[in-house]
Amino acid sequence: MEKRVAVLPGDGIGPEVMAEAVRVLEVVGRRFNHTFHTEYGLIGGAAIDEKNNPLPKETIELCESSDAILLGAVGGPKWDQNPSELRPEKGLLAIRKHFDLFANLRPVAAVPSLIHASPLKEEIVKEVDMLIVRELTGGLYFGKPSRHTDQSAVDTLVYTREEIERIVDKGFELARLRKGKVTSVDKANVLESSKLWRKIVEEKKVDYPDIEVEHQLVDSAAMKLITNPSVFDVIITENMFGDILSDEASVITGSLGLLPSASVRSDGLGLYEPVHGSAPDVAGQGVANPAAAILSVAMMLKYSFGLETEAAAVEKAVNTVFEEGHFTADLAGKDQRALSTKEWTDKIVDEL
Amino acid sequence: MEKRVAVLPGDGIGPEVMAEAVRVLEVVGRRFNHTFHTEYGLIGGAAIDEKNNPLPKETIELCESSDAILLGAVGGPKWDQNPSELRPEKGLLAIRKHFDLFANLRPVAAVPSLIHASPLKEEIVKEVDMLIVRELTGGLYFGKPSRHTDQSAVDTLVYTREEIERIVDKGFELARLRKGKVTSVDKANVLESSKLWRKIVEEKKVDYPDIEVEHQLVDSAAMKLITNPSVFDVIITENMFGDILSDEASVITGSLGLLPSASVRSDGLGLYEPVHGSAPDVAGQGVANPAAAILSVAMMLKYSFGLETEAAAVEKAVNTVFEEGHFTADLAGKDQRALSTKEWTDKIVDEL
Ligand SMILES: CC(C)[C@H](C(=O)O)[C@@H](O)C(=O)O
Ligand SMILES: CC(C)[C@H](C(=O)O)[C@@H](O)C(=O)O
Repeated sequence: MEKRVAVLPGDGIGPEVMAEAVRVLEVVGRRFNHTFHTEYGLIGGAAIDEKNNPLPKETIELCESSDAILLGAVGGPKWDQNPSELRPEKGLLAIRKHFDLFANLRPVAAVPSLIHASPLKEEIVKEVDMLIVRELTGGLYFGKPSRHTDQSAVDTLVYTREEIERIVDKGFELARLRKGKVTSVDKANVLESSKLWRKIVEEKKVDYPDIEVEHQLVDSAAMKLITNPSVFDVIITENMFGDILSDEASVITGSLGLLPSASVRSDGLGLYEPVHGSAPDVAGQGVANPAAAILSVAMMLKYSFGLETEAAAVEKAVNTVFEEGHFTADLAGKDQRALSTKEWTDKIVDEL
Repeated sequence: MEKRVAVLPGDGIGPEVMAEAVRVLEVVGRRFNHTFHTEYGLIGGAAIDEKNNPLPKETIELCESSDAILLGAVGGPKWDQNPSELRPEKGLLAIRKHFDLFANLRPVAAVPSLIHASPLKEEIVKEVDMLIVRELTGGLYFGKPSRHTDQSAVDTLVYTREEIERIVDKGFELARLRKGKVTSVDKANVLESSKLWRKIVEEKKVDYPDIEVEHQLVDSAAMKLITNPSVFDVIITENMFGDILSDEASVITGSLGLLPSASVRSDGLGLYEPVHGSAPDVAGQGVANPAAAILSVAMMLKYSFGLETEAAAVEKAVNTVFEEGHFTADLAGKDQRALSTKEWTDKIVDEL
């Protein structure tokens, strides 16, 4: 197989973890006989510095001619005071919208060798294995009118039937490949958009008789993610609720540093990025944990290229290296030697 | 002091816990020489059954002639299939809006004798002591347009400067009576309403130089409530974010069953209710935990009547009874005898 991958390192620790992710991708290519052409582009703060635009047209062109996109992280204090249009995260929002990457997939699973790092009790999180499917290009994030004066402000939560249908279908399809359960999260006791959302889920479930479906209100889901997170398999929800719940879920197993994410559209094009941010405080020191970036490569192999075996090999390598007790500074115990970003990836490369 | 209190028991366990809350209120009256006139009204499912209206005009009139409102809980499976206008929670939304109860106060504090029931590790939650101040009568809950057809849906998040100013002031004032720190939660990197919100917080903080202020994005606040909840003192946020975050926060200390809440306006009128729901599964059995309802009485004494000493006496009685190891069924350990709703309240009455 031959594929073109756009690599957008971004800011902070982004370039460091992307370098290792690309190295792993190349090893996978050699071992499984694929050719991955990687080409680099600017996004976020790095793009603002060079092009005065968080998503320059060169980057859009690069991504348009690629089969998948790998992204490091964007943002940092340097750009915090910038006007809204010149902020790194605008690059993220713009790339999602431009490429219609409507489905954000955020897996969260307990890793036995890291469960001690969870803020929750082990018995609560040890069985956690969920996938949050967040709608990413609609709702409050993009609805118009959206403006403020000194006296008032308005944002608009809009969804069309098509926008809801495609994300709901996505969730059902993904549940089929997992434990077969969908929890649709809304606020149907208050929001009209949630009423349409719930109606469409009810309609769609007829097409997926093998899937168990439940509805949950967003406030109650926010509680259950803490009191009983292992009841979830696939969670489907709209953009704003998904932003909050997926970040909430990301900390329950204690492994935020290793969570990958995918933002995909129907034809397979996808953007893959670690959930962690740009961590400007540790950037440039070679100590960042590349696990989430490497697992994002695994998601890309699986979801954009259909390379299940290859993806599984990467995931297995990561688990093995953790089980053998190799950790970067963020996860190493007090008496353990912390590996550098590069050293830790060496272990992965050896495994592969 | 002589005060009129409207008591709205509502549905499920509402009537049971309200009966005990009123008993405690009467004991406080006798001990501290106050007269509390209580009068009962219908709300929620109970009101739908009798008046075909979740908030009948008789109830509005009763509340209008009262100094404070005590509410049990609303809702239950019996009304789950009702059309939207005949659902119990509409009674709640309507009473908030009618009486302009714009500030929802949700305290969450660790209770040493109950900390073992927390899903989080003890060291993470043992210092938790926060107050969430949620805007309750604006934003997505009430903005227009709000409608859906079969093809699309829209809800509107609107805020005026005045609406934001009064809730922000409320938060600052409350922080003054506590640890002096305000965390304002918004999504200023995406929402225009959040930008105005953040601007107003920045303006207001000049009037409260003694208060430490920080801004946090809602997704990041959702994480921190789990990873490091003791950093919070007062959280101020808009209606929808407040709904999610206050419910998330309610489960971290393991004491959801005893959390009270207040919904107040500027002149002191307030509605006080337990955070827990109507729990239809255990209703009518006399086993419900009345602690949250009783602590709601304490909040009423403090916030609507300015009776700090009386409120503190009630809070102290609750803590003492827990410390002595008396629990209702929801909290009793395996080898402990669980007290009934009434028996547990007897202990409180004895303490007082
Ligand atoms: C940076 C921000 C705009 C973004 C979002 O809210 O979608 C981030 O929080 C995320 O979840 O990817
Ligand atoms: C019942 C519902 C409308 C209500 C809300 O969302 O405000 C409830 O969740 C609450 O927080 O009091």
